[in-house]
Amino acid sequence: MSINSQDIISNSGIIINQDKKLYSFNLDTILLYNFAKPAKKGKIVDLCSGNGAIGLSLASKTKAQIYLVEIQSQLSKLASQSIEDNHLQDQVHSINDDLKKLPQYFDHDTIDTIVCNPPYFKVSKQTVLKDNQVLAIARHEIKTNLEIILTTIKIMLKENSHAYLVYRPERLSELLTIMAQQKIQAKRMRFVRSKKDQDANLVLIDAVKTVKEASLKVEPDLVIYDDNHQLSKEASLLINGK
Amino acid sequence: MSINSQDIISNSGIIINQDKKLYSFNLDTILLYNFAKPAKKGKIVDLCSGNGAIGLSLASKTKAQIYLVEIQSQLSKLASQSIEDNHLQDQVHSINDDLKKLPQYFDHDTIDTIVCNPPYFKVSKQTVLKDNQVLAIARHEIKTNLEIILTTIKIMLKENSHAYLVYRPERLSELLTIMAQQKIQAKRMRFVRSKKDQDANLVLIDAVKTVKEASLKVEPDLVIYDDNHQLSKEASLLINGK
Repeated sequence: MSINSQDIISNSGIIINQDKKLYSFNLDTILLYNFAKPAKKGKIVDLCSGNGAIGLSLASKTKAQIYLVEIQSQLSKLASQSIEDNHLQDQVHSINDDLKKLPQYFDHDTIDTIVCNPPYFKVSKQTVLKDNQVLAIARHEIKTNLEIILTTIKIMLKENSHAYLVYRPERLSELLTIMAQQKIQAKRMRFVRSKKDQDANLVLIDAVKTVKEASLKVEPDLVIYDDNHQLSKEASLLINGK
Repeated sequence: MSINSQDIISNSGIIINQDKKLYSFNLDTILLYNFAKPAKKGKIVDLCSGNGAIGLSLASKTKAQIYLVEIQSQLSKLASQSIEDNHLQDQVHSINDDLKKLPQYFDHDTIDTIVCNPPYFKVSKQTVLKDNQVLAIARHEIKTNLEIILTTIKIMLKENSHAYLVYRPERLSELLTIMAQQKIQAKRMRFVRSKKDQDANLVLIDAVKTVKEASLKVEPDLVIYDDNHQLSKEASLLINGK
């Protein structure tokens, strides 16, 4: 394990150890952290947690127990080191395992909040995977996929509890379709654009586990840069804390 | 039939006869007309065409044959009158029938473009339907529903041809799920908001009939009013033609 960077998301005050040669958190992570409204107590799971940036930072927002679930041992070790460095051993826990095995760690229907920044890209014959295998697994559906992730969310989440996801608009139809099949219903959605006159780059989704019908709110966009190529007021607040 | 208003959408130059006591076109109609890119020739179908405002106006954009499919005879009659008044009998045709019966009028897989402004609201025991039955049918799923409409689009549309819809964001998950089941894949989506800091009121969707995977673009929002409560430049162009 090589730590070559220590970073903090927004105003959380939590240090994230990173090995930028492997994988480092990015805008998606910062946005999902800010978008999520974690349960105040109970259990929170960060699925596909990487170096634990989102789950760890959430410790500044909640008293709940937080579990970082990551299949890649190099990233899981970084997360464990960050838990120690922040003295959060009583609240944050690292689970270095395949998310499919989560039912071996918790009873069904017992998790109060799930956050997830899943791999965005399908693997096809055409996919050229770069040398960095850790980054490839974080970004491509090599070890898991949308269907497995959403099935896991459905199994683990308490009824009427929320999952928060960040994803790519390109696959929104597929995401919403699988969510609907699993009765994980989108309640709130927010698109993120570099500039207001450009196509969306990301979508943030607040979903609830319910068999009832859900009505979706498409909230105002988050626009990262203003017309003068400067960080917008809101983006600056989320990214720099001011 | 009582005509108490004659209106024109954007710069189409096509007169739309309306009976505002029954139902009159609104912003949705204007936006869908402007969003749609009709085939230049062949056959275009306007499903749930009401008084024919969208389909008739499209005659200014295309040489294709245009069919206005509307179940309500009062609205269909208004459309027929508009066809005559605009001298469009050689191009635009009124079909006063249930859209489910469309396969009796055309062979499967033969329509080049479909536009549709469907009823937005489910009917439940709680639904209070006002006295105006024509308006109630236009706005609520009394005579048809999303599943029937999308099945019809799938049956009628040529492979790789486009359907353009306007809908409510509240039911976006349901819409995209049924579309995916029918292999009507969203390619382009645009949200419409009254003001940039408000939740979206409408969504415009450009979909293609294809068994291949489709990648979705979420285009820049259409914002109707600017910060000074005036029509935005783009909205003014679409609504007033200037």
